[in-house]
Amino acid sequence: MKDVSEMYIPTYDDVLEAHERIAPYIHRTPVLTSSYFNELTGAELFFKCENFQKAGAFKVRGASNAVFGLSEEDAAKGVCTHSSGNHALSLSYAAGRRGIPCNVVMPRTAPEAKKAAVRGYGGIITECEPSTTSREEVFAEVQAKTGGDFVHPYNDPRVIAGQGTCSREFMEQTGGVDMMVAPIGGGGMISGTCLTLSNIAPEVQIIASEPEQADDAYRSFKAGHIIADDAPETIADGLKVPLKERTWHFVSNYVSDILTASEQEIIDAMKLTWQRMKIVMEPSCAVPLATILKNKEKFAGKRVGVIVTGGNVDLDKLPWMLN
Amino acid sequence: MKDVSEMYIPTYDDVLEAHERIAPYIHRTPVLTSSYFNELTGAELFFKCENFQKAGAFKVRGASNAVFGLSEEDAAKGVCTHSSGNHALSLSYAAGRRGIPCNVVMPRTAPEAKKAAVRGYGGIITECEPSTTSREEVFAEVQAKTGGDFVHPYNDPRVIAGQGTCSREFMEQTGGVDMMVAPIGGGGMISGTCLTLSNIAPEVQIIASEPEQADDAYRSFKAGHIIADDAPETIADGLKVPLKERTWHFVSNYVSDILTASEQEIIDAMKLTWQRMKIVMEPSCAVPLATILKNKEKFAGKRVGVIVTGGNVDLDKLPWMLN
Repeated sequence: MKDVSEMYIPTYDDVLEAHERIAPYIHRTPVLTSSYFNELTGAELFFKCENFQKAGAFKVRGASNAVFGLSEEDAAKGVCTHSSGNHALSLSYAAGRRGIPCNVVMPRTAPEAKKAAVRGYGGIITECEPSTTSREEVFAEVQAKTGGDFVHPYNDPRVIAGQGTCSREFMEQTGGVDMMVAPIGGGGMISGTCLTLSNIAPEVQIIASEPEQADDAYRSFKAGHIIADDAPETIADGLKVPLKERTWHFVSNYVSDILTASEQEIIDAMKLTWQRMKIVMEPSCAVPLATILKNKEKFAGKRVGVIVTGGNVDLDKLPWMLN
Repeated sequence: MKDVSEMYIPTYDDVLEAHERIAPYIHRTPVLTSSYFNELTGAELFFKCENFQKAGAFKVRGASNAVFGLSEEDAAKGVCTHSSGNHALSLSYAAGRRGIPCNVVMPRTAPEAKKAAVRGYGGIITECEPSTTSREEVFAEVQAKTGGDFVHPYNDPRVIAGQGTCSREFMEQTGGVDMMVAPIGGGGMISGTCLTLSNIAPEVQIIASEPEQADDAYRSFKAGHIIADDAPETIADGLKVPLKERTWHFVSNYVSDILTASEQEIIDAMKLTWQRMKIVMEPSCAVPLATILKNKEKFAGKRVGVIVTGGNVDLDKLPWMLN
C-alpha cells in the first residue's frame, strides 16, 4: 500500500493484498437465494449476506485491512474514526483483535445496540451531534488528543480495497451476474464493488441504491460533481453521510445508475425480507431490494447480486413499530 | 410405507425413502456456527437452520413425505390436519406443490402471520378454540366433511420419517456431534431425530428442550407414561401440544434428558440469537438455546447440535415488546 495521505486510488492488487491480510478476521459470508423474491421480482436474485459478517457488517473488511496493515510503530498509537455505527463497530473489533486502542466519534442518536456493541469490542466512544459538521469538529479534538491513525469510514484507500473483497468472494460463489446492486451512503462499499468488478467482471452493471430522503449521491451523479447535505434524515441510518473525492472517483466512473426509494418502501422491503428470508437486516440494506421492487422492469430476467450490508438493528425500535 | 392406521413405528429405511421423495420440495438448510455463542456457552454449537426451510419450518419435511407418498387416488381427495401453525403451513405448501386440496384446523389465537401464510399457500382454514379438546372436535367435523387424508402433525409414521431427514443432513454437514438438542412439543422432530441418530450415530446423546409452562413431556418422561395437558400457555406456541403414542415410543426409548426453560429465559435466548446471529427464529426454537445457557456445565467442551426449528414469527408482536 502506498502513501494514503495523498489522493491515492486503490488498485485491484490492493484488493488481493487486503483479502489475504484480512482472511483470518472475517467470514466468507454465504450467498442466499429466495424463490419468493425471484417470483416477486422476475429476476434471479443472489443476496450476499454481510449481515452475517463479523461485527455484523461488511465494514469489518475495510477496517481490518487498515488495522492489520499498520506498522508496529503506528499500531501502538491506536486508531480513531467517526462513524454512523457499523464502521465504529468494525474498527473496534479489528483493533481489539490486534490489541490496540480504538477511539470513535459517534452521533448521540446512533442506535443504542450499536453503541453497546462498540463498547463490547473495547471501543472508546465520544458522542457528537448528528450532523457532518459536528462530527468532524468533535473528531478533530479526539484525534489531536489521542494521536491514533485516522481510518476514515470510506474515503480511505485501505478501506475501499477491503470492501472490494466482498465482490471478489461473491463472483467466486455465484459464477457471475448481470447486475450488482448495493446501497450508497459515503460510497465505500460501492467503490470497492466498482474497483473489483471493473477489473474481474467489467460486463457487470453496477447500480447504487439510496434513500430519497438522503439522495445526495443521486443528485451528485446527475450533476456531475459532489453535492453534500449536512444532516439528512432517513431510517437508513448507515446512508446519511456524503460522498468524498475517492468514492466519487469510483461512482462517477463505474456506476451505471443510482435508484432511490421512499422511507415506506425501505421499511416494507426490510420487513418483507425478515418475514420471507428469516434474516435480520438493517434498514440501510433494505434499500437495494426496495429499489428493485420499484423498478422491476429494469431487473426482470437478469441475474442480480444484492449486497446485504449489515444486520445491526435496535430490536426494541423496529421501524414498522414506530407509528 | 405400511398401513398407517395401526401402531406402525417407522424405520430408518423409511427415513431414506422419505429423503429421496421430498428432496425436490425442501431445502438442504445450512448449519451455522457463532463464535459469540461458543464463548458464551463453552460448547461448540452447530445450528441446523430449519427457519430457512421451505414454508419457514422443518415441518415441511414430514408434510411433504406424507403428501407425495399418497397414491393418485388418495391424493385426489386432498389432505387435512389440525396444527398450531407450522404443520398447517407446511401441509398447505406440500399440497399446493402436488396440486391437491388442503384443509386445516387452527386455533383462532395462532399468529396472524401464520394464518396469512397458510392461505397464501392455498390452505383452507377452519378455526377452533386454543385447546386440544376443541381442536380435535372441530377437526372431526372437517375431516368427515372433506374426506381428505389425515396427516397428523406428529403422531404419523410418515411425518416422523420425514422429520428424520433433518438429522441425516446434519450429520453429513457437521461430521458428527456429541449431543443433539431439539425442542419438544408433540415430539415429531425429536422422534425423527431419535429414529435417525439411533441408527446412524447411536453414540449421540439426544436432549429435548421444553418450556416450563408446557412441561408435559418433562413430566411424562419422569413419570414413565404420557401426561397430557389440555391447554398450556407459553410464548413458544409451537410446543403446546401433548405427546402421542408414536412419539412417546421414541422419547421413552432414546431421549437422554428433557430440560426446561422459563418464559423469560426463552425470550432472552430468542432476542440474543436475533441480535448476534442475525437470524429470525420463533420462540419455540429459542428453547434449546435457553436450556443450554441455563445448564452450561452439561454442554461445556462438547460438540452440540441445535435444531432451529422455524422462523415464522408475527413481526408486529415480538415477545420482548409485549410488556
